Amino acid sequence: MIEISPLRYENDKFMILDQTKLPLEEDWIEINNEDDLWEAIHQLKVRGAPAIGVAAAFGMYVAARDLTGSDFREFYRKYRAVSDYIASSRPTAVNLFWALDRMEKKLLSMEEGLCFGPAWKSELEYIKEELLKEAKAIRDEDEGFCRSMGEYGLQLLSPGMGILTHCNAGALATSKYGTCLAPIHLGEERGYGFKVFADETRPLLQGARLTAWELTRAGVDVTLICDNMAASVMKKGWVDAVVVGCDRMAANGDGANKIGTSAVAILAKKYDIPFYMFVPSSTIDMETKTGDDIEIELRDGEEIYKKWYAHDMAPEGVKTFNPAFDVTDHEYITAVVTEKGIIRPPFDKNIKEMFDRRKK
Amino acid sequence: MIEISPLRYENDKFMILDQTKLPLEEDWIEINNEDDLWEAIHQLKVRGAPAIGVAAAFGMYVAARDLTGSDFREFYRKYRAVSDYIASSRPTAVNLFWALDRMEKKLLSMEEGLCFGPAWKSELEYIKEELLKEAKAIRDEDEGFCRSMGEYGLQLLSPGMGILTHCNAGALATSKYGTCLAPIHLGEERGYGFKVFADETRPLLQGARLTAWELTRAGVDVTLICDNMAASVMKKGWVDAVVVGCDRMAANGDGANKIGTSAVAILAKKYDIPFYMFVPSSTIDMETKTGDDIEIELRDGEEIYKKWYAHDMAPEGVKTFNPAFDVTDHEYITAVVTEKGIIRPPFDKNIKEMFDRRKK
Repeated sequence: MIEISPLRYENDKFMILDQTKLPLEEDWIEINNEDDLWEAIHQLKVRGAPAIGVAAAFGMYVAARDLTGSDFREFYRKYRAVSDYIASSRPTAVNLFWALDRMEKKLLSMEEGLCFGPAWKSELEYIKEELLKEAKAIRDEDEGFCRSMGEYGLQLLSPGMGILTHCNAGALATSKYGTCLAPIHLGEERGYGFKVFADETRPLLQGARLTAWELTRAGVDVTLICDNMAASVMKKGWVDAVVVGCDRMAANGDGANKIGTSAVAILAKKYDIPFYMFVPSSTIDMETKTGDDIEIELRDGEEIYKKWYAHDMAPEGVKTFNPAFDVTDHEYITAVVTEKGIIRPPFDKNIKEMFDRRKK
Repeated sequence: MIEISPLRYENDKFMILDQTKLPLEEDWIEINNEDDLWEAIHQLKVRGAPAIGVAAAFGMYVAARDLTGSDFREFYRKYRAVSDYIASSRPTAVNLFWALDRMEKKLLSMEEGLCFGPAWKSELEYIKEELLKEAKAIRDEDEGFCRSMGEYGLQLLSPGMGILTHCNAGALATSKYGTCLAPIHLGEERGYGFKVFADETRPLLQGARLTAWELTRAGVDVTLICDNMAASVMKKGWVDAVVVGCDRMAANGDGANKIGTSAVAILAKKYDIPFYMFVPSSTIDMETKTGDDIEIELRDGEEIYKKWYAHDMAPEGVKTFNPAFDVTDHEYITAVVTEKGIIRPPFDKNIKEMFDRRKK
């Protein structure tokens, strides 16, 4: 069994798997400073909200490792400049800001109690060690959340099942296991023998480039199909469950995810196949009432007919419509799997209950 | 208004629009002999069942133009050798054999009544002229069928409607107008101002390469989307009708068409959008009871992750499933449009009635 993770910290070296090179090459690049980190995030060498957060945390440690200062405040000013710079690498990545903020809070929490005498130099070492510990804690938490989603997910699945997935909410998007692919990786560790169908996921092909690569690498039985073949596979009776990730869930259980997810959900209902959405609780936004309140990013249409291709696949200047996400109506979702447990309908009531329990 | 046709016969020259060069170039190649024709059909420079039939008919005339013989039987032997050769260019194209057969029958029908004396030379000219007339008749019939489907189709549509289509059952697949795109071309001639959404149609991209090109060229307002975006476009209320072609329809109204069609039909039903399948009556096979009896061609999986791309888009050797067609269950079809008229449910009864009427 091969464990897939897009991030590696070993012997004080921080390495990132360059996902832009997949599926052709498995190229690990070392992050030695803030410029390496900025490039890696900006160029999508690391992608997926949780993985970006963890990469930013380790990257800030690596960058801070080389920083000096005659006292805490000078060190902090330099650290803060690096952190602001990293924040500019991908301005829409909420997890990036969250991780940078958490690392900074950790740093600031150490100010009190430091002595600025002859001990400062060793205290600086202590600060850096604590930053590393915090990065590891962020990673371990993410891994724990994924593992937990995997365990809950496995409660919904049985050995030998056929499972269809869309896009890549896999190990490559997190520090390990992934969200909706977590039960598949855990199941593989336990000999479940799932048969996975991966939608190629146009136009960015995360299913072909990433999910097919990740599952092949982990030894999982995976079959690549075009998005428009999902209905055929379902009709043949080859799919017992659909698992997908989620980019943002509203309080009523409507979930925005990669474009095409809602169609898969509608087809699954037609073929009586359960549809499971894997949603870290941090992805549920109680301030967003329904899916209608989620704004959908529209992307450049050239992704549809130019990107990846040897030549243009449509007449130059053709009109396009290229939404990055769609919203799956909660009535098409059989269950929502979070790291806290499985939420069943009615989602509005049961999601609220989960949050109320957490507050206690 | 620009009329789109993939075939041209002018000043005794027969020209084919090389569809493998679309959408980059509009390259017309002249068919001067049987080798040109064989290559054009084999290499898919001409594609679409009706267009292949018409191309074969004109091509046989062009090849016969250069044939001689001291009497009818010698001429026929030579003609027959060419015809057999052309039949080998695409062994699965039923319309190819149908057109070759019809041209041959025309030729044989002339044998009686010929005199083989001094007049033979001018009679040979007469024979060749009659073959040209037959080729034109085949083209005109096809055009008439398409125009007829277009007129019936227009009865189902209103000016300004949003119309979604999948694959290319357009003018490029016939001698003119197309099947499901016929009402769109006719509507454009009449200022209907349709807004068309063209699914790109993975993996062979006929929607992007052919439909988007053909409709752009004809001045129709067309927007290219990925197959997995159809649900988003429907949800926005932008689609008032779906029009698709058909490769083979069973007696109960189940229709096989390009992979992904059945998913579009299921989504259309969910969003209360009428779904119209355009089916020349020759495409309805009364010997095939239901869609379950239609065998689906499985194609090479490399079409999914190698074809068109600058480099592989999935790990080498990944398992794939690549059906060329799927079957849309008749319960998802609002109406079947043929050149004889519009067929409404119950399809088993009403399709049979149409055939019974034709026999009378």
